[in-house]
Amino acid sequence: MQCERKSLYTSFPPGRVINAGKSQHNEDQACCEVVFVERRPSPRGRPPSREGSEELTGGRRGFYFHYWALFDGHAGSGAAVMASKHLHLHICEQLRDLVDILQDPSPPPLCLPPDAGASPTEPSRVSLAEDNGEVPNDAVPRFHLEKAVSHESLVIGAIENAFKHMDEQIERERTSRRLSGGCCALAAVYLLGKFYVANAGDSRAIIIRNGEIIPMSREFTPETERQRLAVFAFLRPELLGKEFTHLEFPRRVQPKELGRKMLYRDQNMNGWAYKKIEEADLKFPLIYGEGKKARVMATIGVTRGLGDHDLKVFSSNIHIKPFLSCFPEVRVYDLTQYEHCPDDVLVLGTDGLWDVTNDKEVASVVMEVLTSYEPNDPCRYTVVAQELVVRSRGMLKERGWRLANDKLGSSDDISVFVIPLGGPGNYT
Amino acid sequence: MQCERKSLYTSFPPGRVINAGKSQHNEDQACCEVVFVERRPSPRGRPPSREGSEELTGGRRGFYFHYWALFDGHAGSGAAVMASKHLHLHICEQLRDLVDILQDPSPPPLCLPPDAGASPTEPSRVSLAEDNGEVPNDAVPRFHLEKAVSHESLVIGAIENAFKHMDEQIERERTSRRLSGGCCALAAVYLLGKFYVANAGDSRAIIIRNGEIIPMSREFTPETERQRLAVFAFLRPELLGKEFTHLEFPRRVQPKELGRKMLYRDQNMNGWAYKKIEEADLKFPLIYGEGKKARVMATIGVTRGLGDHDLKVFSSNIHIKPFLSCFPEVRVYDLTQYEHCPDDVLVLGTDGLWDVTNDKEVASVVMEVLTSYEPNDPCRYTVVAQELVVRSRGMLKERGWRLANDKLGSSDDISVFVIPLGGPGNYT
Repeated sequence: MQCERKSLYTSFPPGRVINAGKSQHNEDQACCEVVFVERRPSPRGRPPSREGSEELTGGRRGFYFHYWALFDGHAGSGAAVMASKHLHLHICEQLRDLVDILQDPSPPPLCLPPDAGASPTEPSRVSLAEDNGEVPNDAVPRFHLEKAVSHESLVIGAIENAFKHMDEQIERERTSRRLSGGCCALAAVYLLGKFYVANAGDSRAIIIRNGEIIPMSREFTPETERQRLAVFAFLRPELLGKEFTHLEFPRRVQPKELGRKMLYRDQNMNGWAYKKIEEADLKFPLIYGEGKKARVMATIGVTRGLGDHDLKVFSSNIHIKPFLSCFPEVRVYDLTQYEHCPDDVLVLGTDGLWDVTNDKEVASVVMEVLTSYEPNDPCRYTVVAQELVVRSRGMLKERGWRLANDKLGSSDDISVFVIPLGGPGNYT
Repeated sequence: MQCERKSLYTSFPPGRVINAGKSQHNEDQACCEVVFVERRPSPRGRPPSREGSEELTGGRRGFYFHYWALFDGHAGSGAAVMASKHLHLHICEQLRDLVDILQDPSPPPLCLPPDAGASPTEPSRVSLAEDNGEVPNDAVPRFHLEKAVSHESLVIGAIENAFKHMDEQIERERTSRRLSGGCCALAAVYLLGKFYVANAGDSRAIIIRNGEIIPMSREFTPETERQRLAVFAFLRPELLGKEFTHLEFPRRVQPKELGRKMLYRDQNMNGWAYKKIEEADLKFPLIYGEGKKARVMATIGVTRGLGDHDLKVFSSNIHIKPFLSCFPEVRVYDLTQYEHCPDDVLVLGTDGLWDVTNDKEVASVVMEVLTSYEPNDPCRYTVVAQELVVRSRGMLKERGWRLANDKLGSSDDISVFVIPLGGPGNYT
């Protein structure tokens, strides 16, 4: 890793509780850091031209980002542990080229000058003021079709590529480090006034603002990604071996039903129709089961995440990884667009939380706990997180772990971050 | 076409205006029908068991659906004309197997009895009442994993497959009938209390209810379908010839920029990042341009629709059709969930309307015109449609066709349906 970093904990760390005590082996991992992104040295040795923030950073040019992430491992904790130690470094590395660009209010240059870092103060842009009669490359749009790219899009791209590099690192080092399994990853990055929430898997993030719930992620499962997977399988049928079909049926087709008409849908359909069952339809469906029991090739219940490079269908040579994506969906929340009060929070949780406690219930616990603490008490967010975990685990009764409403508690690992948006402390 | 049909116009036809008079050649086509879907005769010759609606239909068993559709042709009107004459017949054909199922409140059978149409009164289901000690095939779920499929999903599937069959018919008959070009298709089907709005292309449908705008479609263009197209191109690079790249750049890359870093995004990314330009990046981008000027392989500005089977990249042998989809997105609106007043309408329009008149402006014209007519005057909807067309075309002034605000009017064909949801007449 080339990325030089300086990491520290925030003075008001958000609530964080790991392992609900339901198992001896915890596959959930978490990480909370403040990372300094140092500008990559100019290859021409030019001194940095702006010095505004250098005092803060001990003479080094760059900026900080705040970072919280949850990694929900499966089939071992190896990938989750590795990702919890490295993902923020990959994000840092991706951002290093953008230090000057992100702090410059003018639009990002579409093409960087030759042999340069991505500094907007490099020659091709400075020459605008030189009035040498030649229009520099990126100063004035010379092409009719030229797309404006926002600063925000660059951060999104940096986070997306960081996930990809993290996945590649796990792939490279999985043998030497004995990294087992894979993990879902949910990361929140606070940078220059905005929260970027990146999700790959079935964890979930919501903002609770003035009692209102704002979803900050969606889950990636065999059901929500049915069409992406079916299209992929349709275009790359060789990856299904001879065992699976990309068509979906409402249940397994039986040999005695050959020739009868059964409901199906293909990769292009959202609705259902009847088709005559043929021999090929007796294969096992690519996606099978509903809700938490839905599986890709009878094997895995999440469709995005890190790791799983060696995952195969049981007793076969069919690889699952080509069907999975390591790319997160990144949603952006601009903290400057709204004046937040100390009760406004961003909640990150693994599926252990959300499987038994829905958004509204989480919001109500948040509000209930926060009102019982002073607004400037930094512990209040930690207590919310603990309370969310405890309520989702339930109490051990005669008939197993039960919630207050006597429903079954979560038997999964549960991890929760509660991050204040307008509370004491700040993210500068 | 096997589908027997009986078609008639509604007693209160919605407003309909075609051709804004801007060109001599109109590539927009429209169709409005009431179609009778007759139950397919039972292969065993069993008499139909329920006779409720047979009086209405002259002893034949089935139901009516109401249908409105707009077809916005390009590169000729052939595909649009053909689709306007046949799409409703394909929908009828797809629904024939569902006549009994859709009228039966119990869940659709997952698998139909052998050699039978899709009647729920066929032996395997009737046997439930026979109490012969044997559980029939589809009466009781015997599999743990059995997906419930709604009646609504069957209608969606029927409409989706109807679009596919329509596209296949155009492909088969394009030479003998000299069918040129392709067309976007937007169809509204009213059936058993629900509106199904199916859109393949860049037309648009909105409901205006009590002044509120409810979107009933989204547009399918190179920009909105960027990711679908890029993934397809990534998985099937041979379809790009040697001329195109699936990567996206904010503008054309120039040979002199080789080795420099430029913004790009690949099929997995929503954000942007910098990459070093290589030889392969000098190829023309699969998707190029913004807004109305965005094109797939420099050729076509819509990514779903019917026809275009012979469309190739200019002076090349690269086919565009594999990148296009004939499948619509179908949205459902349940008319029974809300008590509609005579001013509530569904508006269908081709892009000639929406390019110059946005949703809010359309809603305001609708409300303005409707309040100036008696609620039971059936002409009021026709006047709204005409008014929408006239305002979007504008007036011929010295500097071309101008709107009231002096902006340029639409130079495209404009077609609009205004369909009352709670006005005089009904859809039974």
